[in-house]
Amino acid sequence: MGGDHGPRVTLAACRRFLDNHPDARLVLVGVESAVAGFSHERARHVVATEVVGMDDPVEVALRRKKDSSMRVAIQQVKDGAAHAAVSAGNTGALMAIARYVLKTLDGIDRPAIATQLPNMKGGATTVLDLGANVDCDAETLLQFAVLGSALVSSMSGDDSPTVGLLNVGEEVIKGSEVIKRASVLLRQAAESRDLNFHGNVEGNDIFKGTTDIVVCDGFVGNVALKATEGVASMIVDFLKQEYSRGLMSKVAALVSYPVLKALKKRLDHRRYNGAALLGLRGLVFKSHGSADELAFGHALDRAYDAARNNLLDRVRARIAHAAPLLARPEVTAPTDNAALQAS
Amino acid sequence: MGGDHGPRVTLAACRRFLDNHPDARLVLVGVESAVAGFSHERARHVVATEVVGMDDPVEVALRRKKDSSMRVAIQQVKDGAAHAAVSAGNTGALMAIARYVLKTLDGIDRPAIATQLPNMKGGATTVLDLGANVDCDAETLLQFAVLGSALVSSMSGDDSPTVGLLNVGEEVIKGSEVIKRASVLLRQAAESRDLNFHGNVEGNDIFKGTTDIVVCDGFVGNVALKATEGVASMIVDFLKQEYSRGLMSKVAALVSYPVLKALKKRLDHRRYNGAALLGLRGLVFKSHGSADELAFGHALDRAYDAARNNLLDRVRARIAHAAPLLARPEVTAPTDNAALQAS
Repeated sequence: MGGDHGPRVTLAACRRFLDNHPDARLVLVGVESAVAGFSHERARHVVATEVVGMDDPVEVALRRKKDSSMRVAIQQVKDGAAHAAVSAGNTGALMAIARYVLKTLDGIDRPAIATQLPNMKGGATTVLDLGANVDCDAETLLQFAVLGSALVSSMSGDDSPTVGLLNVGEEVIKGSEVIKRASVLLRQAAESRDLNFHGNVEGNDIFKGTTDIVVCDGFVGNVALKATEGVASMIVDFLKQEYSRGLMSKVAALVSYPVLKALKKRLDHRRYNGAALLGLRGLVFKSHGSADELAFGHALDRAYDAARNNLLDRVRARIAHAAPLLARPEVTAPTDNAALQAS
Repeated sequence: MGGDHGPRVTLAACRRFLDNHPDARLVLVGVESAVAGFSHERARHVVATEVVGMDDPVEVALRRKKDSSMRVAIQQVKDGAAHAAVSAGNTGALMAIARYVLKTLDGIDRPAIATQLPNMKGGATTVLDLGANVDCDAETLLQFAVLGSALVSSMSGDDSPTVGLLNVGEEVIKGSEVIKRASVLLRQAAESRDLNFHGNVEGNDIFKGTTDIVVCDGFVGNVALKATEGVASMIVDFLKQEYSRGLMSKVAALVSYPVLKALKKRLDHRRYNGAALLGLRGLVFKSHGSADELAFGHALDRAYDAARNNLLDRVRARIAHAAPLLARPEVTAPTDNAALQAS
């Protein structure tokens, strides 16, 4: 039901998804009038009577709309009737309902939203958290590192993906108190081989592809994501303006068309649509609200891959293995070089 | 002395600066061998015996190198022998020495680093703080808003530049506890007409040019700045790769040359070089360490403009006017809609 375009886009993407994946089955959850028209031998309908609005406060979504399509879909996951839920709806509501219905895994205090961004190595960097948690402590950042490692290793097959801690400099003595402490925790985890901790990274390292995973709190992650979307839009906008300026430029635009098309594809956030809500006892994926058919299809694909690759079991196993580390050990952040060397 | 390239670059920029500004005078501060060769009727030399290294810890710069070129240059400002100091050296050391020697203005707890970023309106957005303060409370963010307003109004002539508070959403109920509280403080300041507070803004608003000024803590500002530099580099790199791919692309590159050159100029951070250290009892400007002659020249120009436009007096006047607001009033952050409406 969700997203800016509603069932018109999501149902079209669902049909294509079923065509592309002959072994996949879909459970369509929505108000009767919306799902009734969709018929496929590998799709079944589950009717919900309410819809969470994009502007609904979390409290309304959670407490008043108990038969919302979002909640019913997540309940399907909880009941084992579906392997994963995908929604393009209200992020805050989705997170709150998922957390309430599914609960977090043992050792995880707060779920995180993880997404992929393209990097200069031609691959993608997984960044978390992207907005679920605006105030994080060091232990939460360590949990995010474990969750991100489980996600990337299950999706890429690399058992030991590298983790960077987003900071204002690479040096251990730099950063806020929370980051300094998180850096110590991550270093301890690396020594115990539960994490492949590269060290602190800076904002540009996300796009350099310095590490497979970049960990940050949801406030910083959200601002960095939107700032980069902003500068990329500015550049594309500028190129369009320049190419429409004079005759020579128009010729250039024509000849440059394939290059600009390739750039647009490279930067196309639709290709990276489908953020994982990690740390829950069930798989939930969030599509951009503005997703079109292509973008929503990518979100469905990501949920499908996660289910096929047993993401949930892998996350659980990795967390269980890292349990001694996640038990909030007592450490102090380094404040001078002596403490630094001691860590 | 400072920066990655040292006097070779800075002295060349100094000569050009003197040529461009017939009423300007320069005080060159450095070790004797470095400054001795530079002779100009409007330049004088002040010899320092030490140099702060790019890797020197703040403590070393502050306590052990008391005759560093950085410290001697800032002392010139303190003594009234120079209107502004410009350095391409170690940022942390510059900030610490400037703060120690010059002290902060009344009502200001911590100085901020403010820089300009290009926006889609063809102008520039002033962003602060960019790394001086990694842990900020709401009152500090309010001080940054006042400092930024003084900077922009003195440089642009617009008496009432708009201020946005960087957040994960525009809504007042979104964000960390510090941001929610800062939002209340800024709203109170707007009511008293000391600030033109637009409201909360998101990362992409920096590049949209939604507001003249964007306020954030130094951690978020630094990450956002570096992330955008990263994505811009990735795009330029990608365009270069694509244009060198085949014959058709090489033709496109040739025809597109003026467009790409214009893009490069638009994104050229050298044109925005020269960040202001605000909130001190004297003018200090920080150049990128990697600055070339052109970039360092821009930093000199910005210091010159600030001195000519009496930036310091304007900052002082604006802070004095806003003094009742800066006195850390007692407010509580809104946690629900009722509190929100009450604010």
